Formats: sequence, structure tokens, C-alpha cells
Amino acid sequence: MSELRVLPVRGLGAVGQGDDLAALIAGAAELDDGDVVVVAHKAVSKAEGRVVELDRVDASPPAVALADGHDARHVETVLRESARLVRARRGFVIAETRHGFVCASAGVDASNAPAPGWLVLLPEDPDASAARLRARLRELTGRTVAVVVSDSFGRAWRQGTTDVAVGAAGLRVLLDLKGTRDATGYELQGTTIAVADEIAGAAELVMGKTAGVPAAIVRGLAHLAGDGRARDLVMPPERDLFR
Amino acid sequence: MSELRVLPVRGLGAVGQGDDLAALIAGAAELDDGDVVVVAHKAVSKAEGRVVELDRVDASPPAVALADGHDARHVETVLRESARLVRARRGFVIAETRHGFVCASAGVDASNAPAPGWLVLLPEDPDASAARLRARLRELTGRTVAVVVSDSFGRAWRQGTTDVAVGAAGLRVLLDLKGTRDATGYELQGTTIAVADEIAGAAELVMGKTAGVPAAIVRGLAHLAGDGRARDLVMPPERDLFR
Repeated sequence: MSELRVLPVRGLGAVGQGDDLAALIAGAAELDDGDVVVVAHKAVSKAEGRVVELDRVDASPPAVALADGHDARHVETVLRESARLVRARRGFVIAETRHGFVCASAGVDASNAPAPGWLVLLPEDPDASAARLRARLRELTGRTVAVVVSDSFGRAWRQGTTDVAVGAAGLRVLLDLKGTRDATGYELQGTTIAVADEIAGAAELVMGKTAGVPAAIVRGLAHLAGDGRARDLVMPPERDLFR
Repeated sequence: MSELRVLPVRGLGAVGQGDDLAALIAGAAELDDGDVVVVAHKAVSKAEGRVVELDRVDASPPAVALADGHDARHVETVLRESARLVRARRGFVIAETRHGFVCASAGVDASNAPAPGWLVLLPEDPDASAARLRARLRELTGRTVAVVVSDSFGRAWRQGTTDVAVGAAGLRVLLDLKGTRDATGYELQGTTIAVADEIAGAAELVMGKTAGVPAAIVRGLAHLAGDGRARDLVMPPERDLFR
């Protein structure tokens, strides 16, 4: 394994509905074959119009009950994005999204929204978003890259968020080491590394949340080219000890 | 935020009990001030003698019952490393360690052990291990670096492991963005990034599990210098929705 470089993509400016995000990225960065382009889901969602204005949301009685003093329209939006509530306490909801992701507020967030009073949702199908960005980047630059769409998820038992992959295209998202052997000949069993999540986390370190850098390039992982999807990172219910 | 580089530290060879791990790293890599040196916990544990030979372990009746056909001596070792069992199913145990980490087998693992039939445990106090490595690296090289001791943890609801920090020295492990504002003036609330975990994951991408590269240097994060400990990453019980 050789050196990895993680390069922030600067100068994209504010992303709005209908923007050609791939063109913005291609204009701001010099891509190489084998690069992994990590894009914060908020930029993708805003370009795709996956945003909601709070003033246009009517809160249902369950949302009002759950809100417990917080903005019930926000909670209503979270409930609409949820397939299942995992935990709910004083306006704070951990939910499973329709994609199968378990995260705070079903991925609904008010930061980096188009304007105050707006919320950003997860893309409708983040794997498809990643695939479209990848195809468009190839069209614009001639480069074959992988794309990861990232979001910041909390974790059970650990403080703080880490960025993970909610969408992927052109990448092995899970690296299965089963059958490989360590230096003593011991065969690794059940060792699968969520490389797409580690890539998203590495990109976060140069993106920041307030610096207006919604994309980064991770260079040096061409050996991870493949056709995984971020949906493959969801633990199947029958194997999930924490469902 | 500028570019990040992640450099594998090669040529360390097999690490054994009593080895001066900092000297091995200093001999194999050119360190700069502000580097984060990430070391796989197995190298640390082996140098510190935190290894167990299965043939010297007597399995207790609870371990035999839990093992369910798996090696009861292995399960016994897991139980001895556990402060609390979180889930147990057919020889597979998720436990809280004495440090407060929740992970598979309480961090006990047979891969990359000194020899077949041996297990590697987590360091007794991985934050102290990181601090000792940091002090010794400064003594040997004159460089002020941060040190992260990493392990591969599974996650609730998501497939695969990502490397996280189980020990840290010289680093802010959590970056609290409360009070900072996004481009629209929205004040970020409750946004804390587990940067130490993202750093550990980035390092994993160049370390691999079978390539004999138990350390990596993450360069470009000097702004994260601080005095956090990996123990700060443990969710306090009173805030833990998943305890």
C-alpha cells in the first residue's frame, strides 16, 4: 500500500437546486483516474432539491407529541423520512431511513441548509446520486473515478460523529479479508473492513463543517475500484444484534 | 484546511514483548512536528506483553456455556477482559471492556498474534501507552507528534469494521463545533466530530491487516494538537441511549 493523499476541493461556492455539481467539482479540481471523490450529501441534496422549508410543513399530532417543546415541524419532517424509530427522547430521534441507515433525525438537518428556516434531507437514492455524479465526471473530464456521498453519523456507545458513506459508485465499499493469512499463517475470519466509511471519514478531516468545502479527493486507492453500493453497508436485519 | 497525507510505516518487522516500538517507528519513518502517528494496538499490546497463550487458560463453566462449540478458552479470555456483556450469541460476544469500549470479544483477537494458539488483548491503559510512545518518540527524534493507538471495531447497524482510536496522546480527539456558524449564519449545535476515530480509519486504509504495516503517519493535522484521551470517546452511561 502506498501513500494516500486527501485533497480538499475548494471554491465550489453555495450549491443550489439544479446545479451541475459534477461540473462544479470538475471545474475546481484536477481529477486523476482512480481518485475517490467524496461529496458531502448536503451538496448533493441541495443540487437535487431535497430540501424542505419549515413554514410549509404542518406538524401531525404524533410529531407534536414527540417534539416535547422542540420545533414540531422539524420532527414532522424527520418522521416523514423515517421507516422506523429506533430511539426517541425529548425531541431527539434516532431513526432508520428508507435506505436502511440508522442515524439521528433520519438524516434531516438544519445546518448548511439553503437558508435559515430550511432543512436538508438525505438524497432519495444516494447510490444513484453517486452513480450519476461518477458518470457525469467521466463525461466532463474523461477520468474514471469513484464517488462517495458522505454524511456525519453518530455511533452507539461512542461520542461524536464520524463521516460515513451513504452513497457510493465505482468502489468496493466492503473489503472482505476472509481466507487471507497474517504473518504467522493464521487465516483471517469474519474480517470485513468498511473501507467506504473510512474514506468518508478521511475526507471529513479536510472538509470541515463550516469551511464551505463540500468535497474532497482521496488519491491512492485505485486498488479499491469496484461496484459496491453504500446500501451494502447496512447490516441485514437477520444479522443485526442491535435491531 | 490543506492537504492531508497518510503514509504507511514499512519495515517494522514482527513486534515482540519488550521491543522499543517507538525506536522501531523512529528508525523506519521520518517524523515531522505535528504528525499524528497511528499504531495498531496489536503492535502495542505485543510490545507490552498483553498476549495470552490459549494452552495456559482454564475455561470456567460460564465460558464453556457461552462458547457453544467454539474454543471455551478463547471465550474465557474474553470474559476476563470484559466489564459487562452487551450481547452474546453462539460463541460471539460483544462486551464492554474495562476502558468502557464496546466491541467484539472485548478486543481479544487471534489474528496477528505472536504465534498460532496465542491471543492479543487490548493494552491495559491504551491512553497511557500512547503517551509513553509520544514521549519516547520526542526523546528519539526531537519531534512533537501526536499518537493514536487504533483497533478495528464493528458498529451497530452497519456492516464491516472501521478502525477507531482506543488510545491517544497529544491530540484533540473530539472537535466541538458548537457556537460556530455555517455560511447562512446557522449556529451549529451538538456537532462534535470524533476526529481521532476518523484519523484511525484513514490510517487503516494504508495499513491493511495482513501486510505487516502496523503503523502510519497522518500529516497535515497539526491544528488538532491537544490533550484529549481516547477514553473521552466513550459515551457516558447517562447519555448513552443504547446502554
